[in-house]
Amino acid sequence: MTTITAPHQSSIRDEFIDAFRRHAAGVAVVTADAGDGPVGLTATSVSSVSADPPLLVFSLSGRSSSAPAIRRASTLVVHLLGADQLQLAQLFATSGVDRFADRSRWSRLSSGEPYLPAARTWLRGHVLERIPAGDATVVLVQALEFGGAGGEASGALVYHDRTWHRLDDRSTVETRS
Amino acid sequence: MTTITAPHQSSIRDEFIDAFRRHAAGVAVVTADAGDGPVGLTATSVSSVSADPPLLVFSLSGRSSSAPAIRRASTLVVHLLGADQLQLAQLFATSGVDRFADRSRWSRLSSGEPYLPAARTWLRGHVLERIPAGDATVVLVQALEFGGAGGEASGALVYHDRTWHRLDDRSTVETRS
Repeated sequence: MTTITAPHQSSIRDEFIDAFRRHAAGVAVVTADAGDGPVGLTATSVSSVSADPPLLVFSLSGRSSSAPAIRRASTLVVHLLGADQLQLAQLFATSGVDRFADRSRWSRLSSGEPYLPAARTWLRGHVLERIPAGDATVVLVQALEFGGAGGEASGALVYHDRTWHRLDDRSTVETRS
Repeated sequence: MTTITAPHQSSIRDEFIDAFRRHAAGVAVVTADAGDGPVGLTATSVSSVSADPPLLVFSLSGRSSSAPAIRRASTLVVHLLGADQLQLAQLFATSGVDRFADRSRWSRLSSGEPYLPAARTWLRGHVLERIPAGDATVVLVQALEFGGAGGEASGALVYHDRTWHRLDDRSTVETRS
């Protein structure tokens, strides 16, 4: 692995990519239907902003094929995945496949959004703001409704340096007092 | 642990907090000096948005004592921490202490910002936007300069369910092809 010690050795773009490749992230799948059928993508940028009101943020890359449709949606579903849902994370991170081909993996909420019932936790939300940022978009969402399959025992799913990890007792360093 | 299976059993605020408590996150410390001396806080909301231009986002809670000073700063330093920097993460997450009391832990960049030389990777950035979100603020930053102590071998630091974790080969589930 490359160690970043001297600034300006490589381009700032490469240094940035290298730095964040090694910043760990929880794994989510975002689904929506802006009127053209279900779309979804795996996102490692989902983060809570405020609990009251319940707000979260994630970003859409300009290079993602599903991003334009998700950007148009006024409501969407954010699924927070556990390690047992690695296959969902992989499916929604794979290019050039029909991510909704397997009808047993997804369903629709009564409000119409496509969602993945196997996800540990999902949040249906309303898009409050879309902030352009370079060729990407930062999306601010207010959570409206929660559900999920539960299943905490499997451990959390984490993405880091192009590798999927599972958090459990063996990875614990210290519990916060 | 509570399993979220039935919506509307508890308040939406509690469900939201519970859901994100179990969404893993990489750990960063953000430092700045808006003219009143160094301030800093531990943030688990740092995420890359775009590589070209190099943009990142993080959120400031309305309840953090350091947030107002960081919100005022026009430039700041985002430190992405490895597991060996757990003490820094803990220090900057502790209330009621002088986080800059130990002069050996921090220094100033030539551009003036306080920073933590022991951090694996740091990015000095310019604040492009501050987006109000409830009582929190989403901060969009363009990275200008990189540095850091390196030290990849220690593994990544992750925060999940009020517990600090270390990612390494033992936590690996699968490497992305």
